[in-house]
Amino acid sequence: MIKVPGFKGSGVSSGIKKKGKKDLALIFSDTPAKAAGVFTLNVVKAPPVILGMERVKGGHCQAVVVNSGVANAFTGKRGYADAVLTTQYVAKELGIDKDLVIPSSTGLIGGLLPVDKIKKALPRLVSGLREDGFEDAAEAIMTTDAFPKFASTTVNIGRRKGTVAVIGKGAGMIMPNMATMLAYVITDINVGKRALTKSLKHAADNSFNKITVDGDTSTNDTVLMLANGRLGNKTLDATGADYRKFEKAVTETAAEVAEMMVRDGEGATKAVKIVVKGAKTAKDADKVARTLGNSLLVKTAFYGEDPNWGRIVAAAGRAGVKFNPDKLDLYFGDHKVLSSSKQVIDEKKAQKILKQPKFTVTLDLKTGKASSFILASDITFEYLNINAHYRT
Amino acid sequence: MIKVPGFKGSGVSSGIKKKGKKDLALIFSDTPAKAAGVFTLNVVKAPPVILGMERVKGGHCQAVVVNSGVANAFTGKRGYADAVLTTQYVAKELGIDKDLVIPSSTGLIGGLLPVDKIKKALPRLVSGLREDGFEDAAEAIMTTDAFPKFASTTVNIGRRKGTVAVIGKGAGMIMPNMATMLAYVITDINVGKRALTKSLKHAADNSFNKITVDGDTSTNDTVLMLANGRLGNKTLDATGADYRKFEKAVTETAAEVAEMMVRDGEGATKAVKIVVKGAKTAKDADKVARTLGNSLLVKTAFYGEDPNWGRIVAAAGRAGVKFNPDKLDLYFGDHKVLSSSKQVIDEKKAQKILKQPKFTVTLDLKTGKASSFILASDITFEYLNINAHYRT
Repeated sequence: MIKVPGFKGSGVSSGIKKKGKKDLALIFSDTPAKAAGVFTLNVVKAPPVILGMERVKGGHCQAVVVNSGVANAFTGKRGYADAVLTTQYVAKELGIDKDLVIPSSTGLIGGLLPVDKIKKALPRLVSGLREDGFEDAAEAIMTTDAFPKFASTTVNIGRRKGTVAVIGKGAGMIMPNMATMLAYVITDINVGKRALTKSLKHAADNSFNKITVDGDTSTNDTVLMLANGRLGNKTLDATGADYRKFEKAVTETAAEVAEMMVRDGEGATKAVKIVVKGAKTAKDADKVARTLGNSLLVKTAFYGEDPNWGRIVAAAGRAGVKFNPDKLDLYFGDHKVLSSSKQVIDEKKAQKILKQPKFTVTLDLKTGKASSFILASDITFEYLNINAHYRT
Repeated sequence: MIKVPGFKGSGVSSGIKKKGKKDLALIFSDTPAKAAGVFTLNVVKAPPVILGMERVKGGHCQAVVVNSGVANAFTGKRGYADAVLTTQYVAKELGIDKDLVIPSSTGLIGGLLPVDKIKKALPRLVSGLREDGFEDAAEAIMTTDAFPKFASTTVNIGRRKGTVAVIGKGAGMIMPNMATMLAYVITDINVGKRALTKSLKHAADNSFNKITVDGDTSTNDTVLMLANGRLGNKTLDATGADYRKFEKAVTETAAEVAEMMVRDGEGATKAVKIVVKGAKTAKDADKVARTLGNSLLVKTAFYGEDPNWGRIVAAAGRAGVKFNPDKLDLYFGDHKVLSSSKQVIDEKKAQKILKQPKFTVTLDLKTGKASSFILASDITFEYLNINAHYRT
């Protein structure tokens, strides 16, 4: 269970989803919190993302309202007006300024936001705010997720113990359309503006930006961070030992939730950490890792628990990165499969590793010192079931 | 059936594949033909590709020997020596210079070429050479292909009627590893060196380079063109009306075989032409078309016959190309789905189009005048069956 001093959460059913499932979440800070955000790089940005990008520039946020079921994406001016209206209703119900409310939406692309349903549910949503209400909130932002996703940790800042918590939802698709990766980082630690932005970027780059389920970037991806300063520590700068501890806590907690997203990727049976090292630049390493993590060949081999190293080296070769194909080392877990591109695989050992639900694949390009990784799921029959064979 | 004056084909079983299936093919020109080639851009190139790139530089080729079942890829110096040895044996059997023989291999990555099996089968392969033997050759180069692939056409060059024929195999994977796209263009037309190279590049760019089954570039991709000049026409330059007719014939015949590759993509039930127009540059249009053609979201929607336009615009938005997301026009076949990003879809009409085995999707970015296209298959349960659930 998550508790962060000065924050409250809530999640209710507003009737967007069927069968009385929770579909509306609220994250609320007793006082305006400092805020920073990272948003989708997709050219097609959903109106709530555009509005969120504008509002986070103000530097403060007190409430985040999230609905699932409808992404309010590709809805144009009407969608933007609906997002603004929703935040006005929320602000009124909470008695705060509307500019302190940031909205998120996840679900079907193209559908209009049912603002009336949301408005009607707001009194229940607000009266339901509780210090231990984040599990309800995490449940209410789920789409095809199988379980709610949250994690938290504590950090000692001086003599005080601060808390960092992350609530997120999975990177996948909803019936019958694309959904969203959403994550919210909340902390009671008093963090300066630069430290907030820097730590969020670092955390996102090393967690949510390092996962892939299907290689498709959503129109609604959002990671927001709220710091309400309730801990009363001296404002954290973007340098120094305390900052580094804080950044580490944010990054690790975000990585925990990111890993849940991969484990819970649509139809996924495997969470594979693909490490690429020995690259000339980190960008090169990242390119190769991403190509492997998104290769259908590689992902179906993982699903088939097939130590098919040929697919891995072939996919690496098309990543657009130069390396000497005669010098590759490749490992499944600790087992060496290729040594300077010579086969040293023990098929039985390799297969035993691939039968695990979680394992690491390491490719050493041996052309430099940079490395990167990606966390990838496999592609399974259930994935196709979810994405090809359901239709509302 | 294919016949090209001065060319003969043959295909036999050498025992690389099981159950006596044909696995060794020979394309032979009575006289040395002018040759040009296009090869995989994968950093990991199979030894037969490396050898083929070297030999085609000589400008002439008289025989192409192709085996299926083993890709002779990622086999290092030994693999290269095996490829050279094979061409020596073939040259000896045919009584020609080994430098006039180009090898191709397709099948399992990492396995060594069974040179002895090939050597033993060569007398049968050579004595089996016939003018109408190209169907056997097309069958012998198949891996997971369901049917052999070839097409031919005639072109009037001055008063003479020349022939252009293409033999190919599908872009997909073999159990349990990646295979290859291979294609051979043969013609009796007398073509100059520049015209040969130019027409082959044009044809490949507009056929084999415009298809995608799974987005994975093989280590063995090869397109070779042989022109034996038997027609006796005045050597074709790279300009003029006759050249343009020739280029068109090569391109259209190659496109015919390329379309067969998509229709026969592993597990495919759909061949979808994705046209992107109104882009600033052809490169931009190509980027967007490729992103759509490789998006799992889009491909599973095609499989599900689901007019899921949200997946298409979202995938377009992550292609790395700038456009105004409020101005998009989208068509399924002739049916307009989005008009300046407003939904004008008739779900029933749209679904009727998507139920066809072959249809066109057109996305107009309305930011320029350039266009491109890609021919894509869908991703199906059978695809997963082939690539995850078989293992020799």
